[in-house]
Amino acid sequence: MEHLKEKTLESERVFDGNFIRLRKDRVVLPNGATSTREVVEHPGAAAIVPLTPRKEVVLIRQWRHPIKEVSIEIPAGKLSEDEDPLECAKRELSEETGFSARRWDPLIQFYASPGFCDEEMHLFIARDLYVSDGRPDEDEFVEPLVVPLEAALEMIETGEIMDAKSIIGLLRAARFLEMEKV
Amino acid sequence: MEHLKEKTLESERVFDGNFIRLRKDRVVLPNGATSTREVVEHPGAAAIVPLTPRKEVVLIRQWRHPIKEVSIEIPAGKLSEDEDPLECAKRELSEETGFSARRWDPLIQFYASPGFCDEEMHLFIARDLYVSDGRPDEDEFVEPLVVPLEAALEMIETGEIMDAKSIIGLLRAARFLEMEKV
Repeated sequence: MEHLKEKTLESERVFDGNFIRLRKDRVVLPNGATSTREVVEHPGAAAIVPLTPRKEVVLIRQWRHPIKEVSIEIPAGKLSEDEDPLECAKRELSEETGFSARRWDPLIQFYASPGFCDEEMHLFIARDLYVSDGRPDEDEFVEPLVVPLEAALEMIETGEIMDAKSIIGLLRAARFLEMEKV
Repeated sequence: MEHLKEKTLESERVFDGNFIRLRKDRVVLPNGATSTREVVEHPGAAAIVPLTPRKEVVLIRQWRHPIKEVSIEIPAGKLSEDEDPLECAKRELSEETGFSARRWDPLIQFYASPGFCDEEMHLFIARDLYVSDGRPDEDEFVEPLVVPLEAALEMIETGEIMDAKSIIGLLRAARFLEMEKV
């Protein structure tokens, strides 16, 4: 795939915020012409499908400022510097839902928007939940919502769940459980 | 859900690029404290699962600069101003694959990364393909890859397909075809 590759000539930092870092790269295209690529830099994230013994999934409701809506999602959070994705997943599950889990399995890794952002998402399924003492960060307001996995899958159909990582997580979790039965 | 809502106090444009626009909002949190939200503004996008009569899917390979990899994805593109998502999908299918389609159905809509970006993605399934005269934009280098839908689903399992919209599109398309049979 070498013939599709773009080579970076130079790189300029254009924004360095609390959350978002942005750079502008000058690249050489496969045909030798040059072009500009704007890249949102993201530390990566971990997300969790937490399942109770009765095959209920613990979702959270939260306000998402960019879309100006309350969004129903699986628990998730950004990786701290050099953080192991599984450690991040354990921390976020506890902080956002008050649950911890004894049993963890990787579900899938993917890129959220590879056209303009380097965010890589690590998805896990968490089982054998128990109540821990986690609580959200001070500026984070989240509400748990516990529903059967089947109902959560139905919420994708009805458009009540519209968040990409949650859609992928729930569909993968359903398949993961099916495969285990085989 | 009013009690989870954040109210915007002020808004500042911090970057206005060719592709990415970024603003910084000052918001009031549910507890009355104030905080800052950085938002990547995106015009929205459309993506297509194009299926041949033999249930092959037309994928594309392209270099994704942010992740520095060749990515295998379904065809997709950004909406032009006020563009209807279906019109965008038709245009992008033709530009990126050289195919047009006589039969279109909506698959799902979702938010790619609602934590920091307002991008809404509109997904379609396109059938009854025929060869059109589309070709990619000058600075876009894409290569088509035609594989059976079952093989594409397997490429999600193996990690060969790691792009969120493509994962959602392929999983939804498989389900859509199954439902039609019922």
